[in-house]
Amino acid sequence: MNEFIAPVDPAKAYRLLNHGPTVLVSARHDGVNNVMAAAWACAMDFMPAKLTVILDKIAATRALVEHSGVFVIQVPTVAQLQLTHTVGTRSLADEPDKLKRADVELFSMPGFELPFVAGCSAWLACRLIPEPHNQSTYDLFIGEVIGAWADTRVFKDGHWLFEDADPAFRSLHYIAGGRFYAIGEALDVEG
Amino acid sequence: MNEFIAPVDPAKAYRLLNHGPTVLVSARHDGVNNVMAAAWACAMDFMPAKLTVILDKIAATRALVEHSGVFVIQVPTVAQLQLTHTVGTRSLADEPDKLKRADVELFSMPGFELPFVAGCSAWLACRLIPEPHNQSTYDLFIGEVIGAWADTRVFKDGHWLFEDADPAFRSLHYIAGGRFYAIGEALDVEG
Repeated sequence: MNEFIAPVDPAKAYRLLNHGPTVLVSARHDGVNNVMAAAWACAMDFMPAKLTVILDKIAATRALVEHSGVFVIQVPTVAQLQLTHTVGTRSLADEPDKLKRADVELFSMPGFELPFVAGCSAWLACRLIPEPHNQSTYDLFIGEVIGAWADTRVFKDGHWLFEDADPAFRSLHYIAGGRFYAIGEALDVEG
Repeated sequence: MNEFIAPVDPAKAYRLLNHGPTVLVSARHDGVNNVMAAAWACAMDFMPAKLTVILDKIAATRALVEHSGVFVIQVPTVAQLQLTHTVGTRSLADEPDKLKRADVELFSMPGFELPFVAGCSAWLACRLIPEPHNQSTYDLFIGEVIGAWADTRVFKDGHWLFEDADPAFRSLHYIAGGRFYAIGEALDVEG
């Protein structure tokens, strides 16, 4: 945890995901940590903030979430392009040293028994709301946000600062086959 | 429907939403059309493509979806910034002429009894998969994609062309309070 990380007002935590970034999902169970990428994560409620994330049955992280009942959704940056793609295409089942190979550095937050990925722009600690039908039929997991933080160099006072921050902090938006887009220009509507 | 609109390979329809754009949701029932904006829409499966969208209980469009069992998710462009914000902040319940005021032009697709919004970059016709618990508890609606089209000036052969297309075709990513970001730079990862 670095000196730029600050808590986010729970009522504004949904804004961390509102623009649809690709995220990293991390979880821990029985001493095992894992991190995966997920393009299919989405805000679903304001207060308390809730979100959805699709976790395929072959994802090792899914089992950690099911066993521990908690997980972290975090927003990776352009500086983490390669890391994001690597954790999204390799499996802990095949490569036990996946996180080391992907240059993932984990850190802790006081009071949370969860692995947070260093270098991201925002973090949402979540409690799984168990919905067995959704999980088994659709691979759909629902989380309630129990803690939110952001790097104040790119998200402050409830607002993303992409237009002023170092471009390395821009969020990633995955399409397919190694193609991402970074978030772009700010546009404001009146009224 | 203009000459640039072409069907999208069903196996690649998920790519229309994969980068997390804010979308327009449209539906029709008993002769009434409506269109709303939704930042909380997300791909959830590849083939057949499925998606989730959050439809608040106060949204007039929700009732049209519940009654007709079908809806369209479409991807608006930077050229539709004001339209997107207007349909996202006004309600048909208060303003029966909402669509006219928002300058929404609707068109049809042969074989689909649905209102499509002209000027978007992509369209996903969906059949509601009824899940009453999700709908009532979380305002969460699940759709199976039954038709997909894109404007070939910005999505062709299964790929977004944001980096080469007219910037007016960029997707919108809403945050809050009238603040959107446009999609930005293309980034490619090897391997």
